[in-house]
Amino acid sequence: MLRSPAAMGSGAFALALALALAACVAPAERKCLLSGSWRSDTGCRMVVSVLSKDGRFSGSYLPGPAAGNSEILTSPLEGSQQDARLVPHPTFSFIVHWQLRDSDTTRTTAFLGQCYTGTNGEETLHALWLLREAADSPAEDWKATRVGTSIFTRIK
Amino acid sequence: MLRSPAAMGSGAFALALALALAACVAPAERKCLLSGSWRSDTGCRMVVSVLSKDGRFSGSYLPGPAAGNSEILTSPLEGSQQDARLVPHPTFSFIVHWQLRDSDTTRTTAFLGQCYTGTNGEETLHALWLLREAADSPAEDWKATRVGTSIFTRIK
Amino acid sequence: MLRSPAAMGSGAFALALALALAACVAPAERKCLLSGSWRSDTGCRMVVSVLSKDGRFSGSYLPGPAAGNSEILTSPLEGSQQDARLVPHPTFSFIVHWQLRDSDTTRTTAFLGQCYTGTNGEETLHALWLLREAADSPAEDWKATRVGTSIFTRIK
Amino acid sequence: MLRSPAAMGSGAFALALALALAACVAPAERKCLLSGSWRSDTGCRMVVSVLSKDGRFSGSYLPGPAAGNSEILTSPLEGSQQDARLVPHPTFSFIVHWQLRDSDTTRTTAFLGQCYTGTNGEETLHALWLLREAADSPAEDWKATRVGTSIFTRIK
Repeated sequence: MLRSPAAMGSGAFALALALALAACVAPAERKCLLSGSWRSDTGCRMVVSVLSKDGRFSGSYLPGPAAGNSEILTSPLEGSQQDARLVPHPTFSFIVHWQLRDSDTTRTTAFLGQCYTGTNGEETLHALWLLREAADSPAEDWKATRVGTSIFTRIK
Repeated sequence: MLRSPAAMGSGAFALALALALAACVAPAERKCLLSGSWRSDTGCRMVVSVLSKDGRFSGSYLPGPAAGNSEILTSPLEGSQQDARLVPHPTFSFIVHWQLRDSDTTRTTAFLGQCYTGTNGEETLHALWLLREAADSPAEDWKATRVGTSIFTRIK
Repeated sequence: MLRSPAAMGSGAFALALALALAACVAPAERKCLLSGSWRSDTGCRMVVSVLSKDGRFSGSYLPGPAAGNSEILTSPLEGSQQDARLVPHPTFSFIVHWQLRDSDTTRTTAFLGQCYTGTNGEETLHALWLLREAADSPAEDWKATRVGTSIFTRIK
Repeated sequence: MLRSPAAMGSGAFALALALALAACVAPAERKCLLSGSWRSDTGCRMVVSVLSKDGRFSGSYLPGPAAGNSEILTSPLEGSQQDARLVPHPTFSFIVHWQLRDSDTTRTTAFLGQCYTGTNGEETLHALWLLREAADSPAEDWKATRVGTSIFTRIK
């Protein structure tokens, strides 16, 4: 799965060339950045700050109309985007600490995903996530973690 | 899954009482903090900084003797611990951006777990993780993510 | 997470009532069965046999047009559907043993999901899956498993 | 991730040689079969039938002493083992349909794993699993699935 140094060299050159061409021809292809407002496929909204120079961001996850999310209050998120502005489909990761109505249970979700730009220039975020609800004891640890996917599209 | 306000009230009281008792009787029970050096069940080492006032930390993931990890260079991690010093089994999350020998593939792991203190006072970290290797295109996104668990014990 | 006997009693009654009403008003609501031909969101096709009396089925997973799947040959699947014809959104599970072109690596996927009928009567299968590629040794076991989701719609 | 035909050829030869040597020198290395009684790292017991000629088995998952499992009744399982008796570390998959005390919720777990024989001849099963609890509606599907690992050792 690892490329040889030679392959890397030519790969890096091809990448540089691709980026140079992209800069002239198709700037829209390079935008895929998390900054802005997003809607998930379960109806939640997410607002992400401007990225710092090293790709970090903060933001909020907002409750959506979905029945299963009515317990959620606006919840802070923090994360970073890798190689933003350098590659066509940058990866990202962020953590949400859930603020819940009527509950003091600690719940945290880790999102790990990649930003894709469609042929129409539309950005889509594809992410898998783990959601942990604090277990009361080691004997209950086995059932603490849920898994799923989320797809986000930009709110214009 | 949410407790009623009444249940929360008594739960909060029971928690306060438990913490008060813990403070007198068994201070060791409360230590579970990520700061320090850890060894994973696959033989990797991890060094975590002192926690900031709001529970954040940084650190490094170091290559271990395990055959499958020989390609790994020292890699930076960042994360946070929730309710550190307040609850007996605090949850945590951290992200590792892998630095790989002979490879420029972007790989990121999100760890999500909980710190448990055993009856002997030994701390153990139980975590699930997602590992994403950047996909070249949306059509290859489906196979980008691996999942697994890690158990860490403190190196003394 | 378990209901009290009282809640179960009224739940069971409500369910019986709902099913009785469904039997009169909306028979289409109860169909959600896996038998037939399906297309996944990654472009693969799946053909599932008629269900046996106890909900078992067999079938085939067929290669799709997706770039990442060109290595796949027609692969056998086996599984079962729970409470088929009894509940509106039955769960299901099935295992695929992959037949691969130019490869003798053992790869197996376990799908676990639920069949939903939309307001338009269209059935959709929502599944999470684990894909294991046989590890050569215990030291490589940690990276053997991928995770993801698939959504299937019926081919008419 | 696929090997070239040339690499496959030499790989196949090396495998054949390894198997031939193993047949002479270390028959214990090849036993890794699921038939028998196992204990999971959470204290559950599992009994697996003799394998059929094509690797299928049935069995039962039994309640363990672990606190979180007290609600479980003896639950049926079905699955199969790939390449049993042919490779040193065969993969396996099985499905458990949970029978629960005081609950009519449908819960199903899919296990996907591999059998390893240690240097002492002890067999260990390493598995990842997905556990789905039937969602009441599509809007609640996102939280239906948990993920985790189990390690089983043989009960003698």
